[in-house]
Amino acid sequence: MERIIAHYLIETPYDLDKATAILAGEQSSGTFVDIPGETQALKDRFSARVENIELLEQAQQPSLPGDSSPHASYKRARVSVSWSVENFQDNIPTLIATLQGNLYELRQFTGLKLDDFDLPDYYKSKFKGPVFGAKATKELAGVIPQKPMIGTIIKPSIGFTPQQTADLVKVLVEGGIDFIKDDELMASSANSPFEERVCQVMKVIKNHQQKTGKKVMYAFNISGDLETMKRNYDVVVQHGGSCAMLSINSVGWVGVKAIADLGGLSIHGHRNGWGMLNRHPLLGINFPAYAKLWRLAGVDQLHVNGIRNKFWESDASVIRSIKACSEPFLGIRKLLPVVSSGQWGAQAFDTYKHTKTTELLYMAGGGIMSHPFGPAAGVRALQQAWSGAVQGKTIEETEHECAEFAALVAKFGKLKTS
Amino acid sequence: MERIIAHYLIETPYDLDKATAILAGEQSSGTFVDIPGETQALKDRFSARVENIELLEQAQQPSLPGDSSPHASYKRARVSVSWSVENFQDNIPTLIATLQGNLYELRQFTGLKLDDFDLPDYYKSKFKGPVFGAKATKELAGVIPQKPMIGTIIKPSIGFTPQQTADLVKVLVEGGIDFIKDDELMASSANSPFEERVCQVMKVIKNHQQKTGKKVMYAFNISGDLETMKRNYDVVVQHGGSCAMLSINSVGWVGVKAIADLGGLSIHGHRNGWGMLNRHPLLGINFPAYAKLWRLAGVDQLHVNGIRNKFWESDASVIRSIKACSEPFLGIRKLLPVVSSGQWGAQAFDTYKHTKTTELLYMAGGGIMSHPFGPAAGVRALQQAWSGAVQGKTIEETEHECAEFAALVAKFGKLKTS
Repeated sequence: MERIIAHYLIETPYDLDKATAILAGEQSSGTFVDIPGETQALKDRFSARVENIELLEQAQQPSLPGDSSPHASYKRARVSVSWSVENFQDNIPTLIATLQGNLYELRQFTGLKLDDFDLPDYYKSKFKGPVFGAKATKELAGVIPQKPMIGTIIKPSIGFTPQQTADLVKVLVEGGIDFIKDDELMASSANSPFEERVCQVMKVIKNHQQKTGKKVMYAFNISGDLETMKRNYDVVVQHGGSCAMLSINSVGWVGVKAIADLGGLSIHGHRNGWGMLNRHPLLGINFPAYAKLWRLAGVDQLHVNGIRNKFWESDASVIRSIKACSEPFLGIRKLLPVVSSGQWGAQAFDTYKHTKTTELLYMAGGGIMSHPFGPAAGVRALQQAWSGAVQGKTIEETEHECAEFAALVAKFGKLKTS
Repeated sequence: MERIIAHYLIETPYDLDKATAILAGEQSSGTFVDIPGETQALKDRFSARVENIELLEQAQQPSLPGDSSPHASYKRARVSVSWSVENFQDNIPTLIATLQGNLYELRQFTGLKLDDFDLPDYYKSKFKGPVFGAKATKELAGVIPQKPMIGTIIKPSIGFTPQQTADLVKVLVEGGIDFIKDDELMASSANSPFEERVCQVMKVIKNHQQKTGKKVMYAFNISGDLETMKRNYDVVVQHGGSCAMLSINSVGWVGVKAIADLGGLSIHGHRNGWGMLNRHPLLGINFPAYAKLWRLAGVDQLHVNGIRNKFWESDASVIRSIKACSEPFLGIRKLLPVVSSGQWGAQAFDTYKHTKTTELLYMAGGGIMSHPFGPAAGVRALQQAWSGAVQGKTIEETEHECAEFAALVAKFGKLKTS
């Protein structure tokens, strides 16, 4: 029978074989004593199986509290455990409850992080994955394969009226932007009711489309309970929008899948709360596993942070995340990585150097909105940066050739390239 | 305008006033430069406001990575921040995106945990909360106020056929149990399809009800995508069941609310994955905040771990969690705390001593299933333990009077009472 394999980073003071067997046992029979009725045949068919154990390093101190008594050293390892598809069939919430369940609470581990997992071919026909994915999302916004999508966020995050939002959208679409989004803090607020915002913003976008043929993508934040999301989804469709944004961690897997399954809009997956799940090196989940779960739910666009971001995440993690979005997975469509946080163009050079892809959405907030010559110049500056990066030019060469990008360099300073 | 107040535990190398202002800023305007259009009037109306800062202690090392450069010391504090209800209205996923959003990723914090939050009266009419809650859930299972509900989990977690499950249920209901549940690893598996399991189990429960008048509550694990959950919910209702179990973290807030809103079954909230959200002392969320979010979604029963559990969680955290379930909150019903993990009766004494409540579900797996005289004796032993605890007797007195409880003490050893 085909098996699901999960890969963990663990830390334990105990013998690695024994500790990993406890992990597998907790996620199979799950109690602290032998149980009548649990035959060897049952165990063979339904138990988790340890597939691989690889010692990485030793530490002097535990990474997390909960060890029953102090130990001299703690082994860090990468371990792989497998389950039969018979246990879950196509039930992903129950698969998640197994891959990420009680095992974080086991005293025997002073660190445990789900790094990645592999699904067998059994799942190929079960999930359609992203309806649009990276390629069709870019096409929806009229962006050619050789360029990334350039996007921005409406700021201040909250407080603008629909008309103020629409006025800003007008400046941005006339400046040549491909994508604009609501902030995750903003859904329907007292002075920006959802439907009115959609109406005003789409009026601007459709006017621009009539003039230029280009339909800028706007990600309206439809996050809410199921009824709210469905109602707001319909509002976006009715007004001719092409994208809905969801705060995926707070909406949750089931709610996100229910909306993605509607199939009419590209789904912008905002991962706010990610730091809670990932910031500790030995607790939570790493992006390759996280991205697969949301790809199964049908998310089209997923946030990955950016190189030299304003947050804590390392460049290595960001690069790994961008690559994970296009990793082959059950034959379903690729995710469009959403690169953001503290981006203003200079990072395009390293982003392209390390990933060699323009199949991404490059988001800049302050980089566009506070450009010395105005937001339209900010959009051009980002396009110049990416064009330079793709052509293999340096920041200096691009700055020399392009006045708008040069103005951003003058404003934000020349960042060290790595 | 009424405000929502969130209470965080934070750690930062920076000045506390400045760091907390950054937290509030990130969750209001959310960018790294000043934005045209962000007027003082807008800020006053929509910005987060720092309400309180209380220094707790200083640490020499950061709790989490991401600090831009090493600092000599790190301040730990409790801080409170508030937002106007105008920002969210009744949109809880967006409230979660604000309370638990990007702020975990801020470099300025080397630790951040949402400890609790308070909602103003504005929300009183917006959420019905648990349809059954603690009181009516116990009543559904025919348990009097003076006693806790006694429950167990079908083990092995996965592998039994519906008939084997029903056979075990028969032994347990005849033994006088109040509550039985599926394991979270088990939803619909190859050899225990959901509907067949419900059919076989409910036949036993209804037979027992006809004979005795008591309807034992069985929590069927309906976790899955939305369609699966709705279908399985209906199956449980059709067969006369009274309870559905959800893996709340993997289903997510929206999916759980959609199911709880159906209103016909008591919702057993299984929090597997909790360790990922809580195990680090300065990352994630503490139970008081977590419980409120799920109470808003309409969960009736919520896991809280147990005293001297097999997991890492401290007794202090377990006791705080049990108390949080009955904290007054918007006038909505109380949660029934589900006490479990390594429980076999001896912990009843300390549990009652510290919480003075029988409004809980006391779950024992091995404690019941591996009782030397069989599962029925295991159930009696737990009832004896609770009866002794409520009457203010000691473990020794109860052991002396009650043969079944004495047999468990002989098997598991006398645990130190605190």
